Amino acid sequence: MTQLANGFSRADIERVVRSVLTKQLGTAAPVPAPAPERNPLVVNISARHVHLTQEHVEILFGKGAELEPQKWLYQDGYYAAKQTVAVIGPRRRMLPEVRVLGPCRSASQVELAFTDGISLGIDLPVRISGDVKGTPGCILMGPKGVVTLEEGVIRAMRHVHMGPSDLEHYGVKNGDALHLRVESPACTTVLEDVVIRADPTVKLEVHLDTDEGNAINLEHATKVELIKPHGCGCKH
Amino acid sequence: MTQLANGFSRADIERVVRSVLTKQLGTAAPVPAPAPERNPLVVNISARHVHLTQEHVEILFGKGAELEPQKWLYQDGYYAAKQTVAVIGPRRRMLPEVRVLGPCRSASQVELAFTDGISLGIDLPVRISGDVKGTPGCILMGPKGVVTLEEGVIRAMRHVHMGPSDLEHYGVKNGDALHLRVESPACTTVLEDVVIRADPTVKLEVHLDTDEGNAINLEHATKVELIKPHGCGCKH
Repeated sequence: MTQLANGFSRADIERVVRSVLTKQLGTAAPVPAPAPERNPLVVNISARHVHLTQEHVEILFGKGAELEPQKWLYQDGYYAAKQTVAVIGPRRRMLPEVRVLGPCRSASQVELAFTDGISLGIDLPVRISGDVKGTPGCILMGPKGVVTLEEGVIRAMRHVHMGPSDLEHYGVKNGDALHLRVESPACTTVLEDVVIRADPTVKLEVHLDTDEGNAINLEHATKVELIKPHGCGCKH
Repeated sequence: MTQLANGFSRADIERVVRSVLTKQLGTAAPVPAPAPERNPLVVNISARHVHLTQEHVEILFGKGAELEPQKWLYQDGYYAAKQTVAVIGPRRRMLPEVRVLGPCRSASQVELAFTDGISLGIDLPVRISGDVKGTPGCILMGPKGVVTLEEGVIRAMRHVHMGPSDLEHYGVKNGDALHLRVESPACTTVLEDVVIRADPTVKLEVHLDTDEGNAINLEHATKVELIKPHGCGCKH
């Protein structure tokens, strides 16, 4: 403890000053602000969905059409739209009602689980959202028109959205991967390869697909944790 | 090298004897049998299926009916039958063609993935096959009749069939659990809680369900390994 020249320690002085201020102000003196609280770890399942350009929205739903929010998602500003489209695979197999997510993007993209890919007859590549070069295409059908996507049908790679304080907390950067361990009765699982997607404005959130959610019984999970992989591939 | 009294080493003598025998018999002399090879680690997916008693087979498919093998499974003597049944859930939702596996058992049982349970409207308990007390029931419908199961609809817990040499190799016993680590591109996963089902006659085989197989991209897996969990929950 630092002793000052007058024989009082810094802590002594601080205590006295606080005590006086508390009496005078009827409240405790301001203490140093605690580190900003990090967001809780949220694990959500993304069911199959479609992202659309505004141009495709108008082809599928009519000139001047706009996406209409039906349900707001965990991340601020994002929503499941009222609109759905049919996704048609190479052998004319179809998923009749796939939800569109908003707002619009600069490229249209379809995100499916392997279960969906099997029923459509598409061998899905696992990609980070937006990285669709060379991926399979499909046909999208809406009430007013049809769009042929040359590419953009993927299984979204498991990922976690992180803001600056989360990156700092875990000691990671955009593009790194963490493990997600989920404890659930008789189905505990460690999902490796959970890729980090950093953005200054997002809340901490892991996105899995429906196959992953069902495999690990996320609905009955009792604990979720992000683990930094060591060289050995585990946390210990 | 052991030197014998006559100045020849044991290896020298062995070489000479082998050489002579090979010339005489046209084949190498028998060498000591190597340790029996263990079965390779096989990971298979069990799609949704039904086990039936002989009594239920006859109600569903007619008096005197027997299960007919359509495809033999990896374990000797077990098969996917030609027969299928409809599985009907509590809200009259139906899975129209669920394969029956043979041979018959002493109790009928339905094994589904969570994806199936969601479409049927049944909240599936995760159980070891045969442990069905208190589980949900369903209606089975065949071409000749209907059976009401009071219980027996489960999600089979991940498990591994092991014979005596496998138990010895992994240092485990019936009912213990191992971890299965599956490396696959962008989807590497550690499935904990893989329960051991020991039987003197089985071949080493892990059984997952379709949700698990799809979640971990088993089709494109590059490596599978069983890991003995330590106190820390990992292998290191």
